[in-house]
Amino acid sequence: MAHLTVSVEYGVHCLLWLAGSGDTPLSSRDLADLQGISHSFLAKIFSRLEKAGIVRASEGVRGGYLLARAPEDISVLAVVDAIEGRKPLFDCQEIRGRCALFGSEPPRWATNGVCSIHAVMLRAEKAMRDTLAGQSLAALTQAVARKAPSDFSTEVETWLGDRVRSRTRRSSPAAASSPNREVPS
Amino acid sequence: MAHLTVSVEYGVHCLLWLAGSGDTPLSSRDLADLQGISHSFLAKIFSRLEKAGIVRASEGVRGGYLLARAPEDISVLAVVDAIEGRKPLFDCQEIRGRCALFGSEPPRWATNGVCSIHAVMLRAEKAMRDTLAGQSLAALTQAVARKAPSDFSTEVETWLGDRVRSRTRRSSPAAASSPNREVPS
Repeated sequence: MAHLTVSVEYGVHCLLWLAGSGDTPLSSRDLADLQGISHSFLAKIFSRLEKAGIVRASEGVRGGYLLARAPEDISVLAVVDAIEGRKPLFDCQEIRGRCALFGSEPPRWATNGVCSIHAVMLRAEKAMRDTLAGQSLAALTQAVARKAPSDFSTEVETWLGDRVRSRTRRSSPAAASSPNREVPS
Repeated sequence: MAHLTVSVEYGVHCLLWLAGSGDTPLSSRDLADLQGISHSFLAKIFSRLEKAGIVRASEGVRGGYLLARAPEDISVLAVVDAIEGRKPLFDCQEIRGRCALFGSEPPRWATNGVCSIHAVMLRAEKAMRDTLAGQSLAALTQAVARKAPSDFSTEVETWLGDRVRSRTRRSSPAAASSPNREVPS
């Protein structure tokens, strides 16, 4: 299995839509339908992103999620850690202390400091994480936007707006005025 | 699960012993017992290392494994790839092409080139792999050797030599002269 799962891909794609929507909240159900992905799966991802302070929920029929910080201040690494947890690249089992010559108690020199093999893996992990930390959602949003035709974002806004209007029409006045947090439990 | 498993840890530790043993083959069973790890598990790791041309088998009662190349020419990355296969850090599902606005056929611009999110992950993966590629077994052997007392390698040689002598004594002359490849099937 890849180290970074499809949850990260789903999460980052959604955050790019949120970065482009500014002060307009986007519903996780609409984002799931827009991208052809499972809503229940996406709801779990949003729950993690909210817990990590990357998104915040806005309640009501027109509610949904907003970025909780400026996209310049959200790194891809922060998103990865929020969604995946802090998974190590390498999980050292300290087999250096198990040498048959040591008996039941390894000498201090044998397990002192970080194992040299583990140290190499930690350097590799740092190089990976530094790259992800150096990439902000803002820069990624610009890179993605450059590929799309100029009218695409307007088309998406219209599509999302139609979904919100459809929900608003369906809602009774009572329902529309009550808290209707668009966050699945 | 960590991206690089305990198989890599076992494999690299064994290769460091081989790097230190020069032209003397080491048996995978002795290496397993020396380090307190499962022989059957280690045998599978050696099989992959042999297939990748990192070790070669030497047959006979005094047989075992030798490095197939100089330790200066074996990178940690080569060992990782030999043992784990070439696992991607991130397995892009190309959800950018699934946008509801595209219908059944995404436009060319939407899936042209590498997805910008995937591109970030590929840069992070390259940074990780470059670090592992820049670390040779020779450098790692020196780093490990610096931690041990000067007489430790002699003690290990004696321990391993005793094991070989014990096998030689137990073997009949017929068995000793027949091919006795120390590689489990």
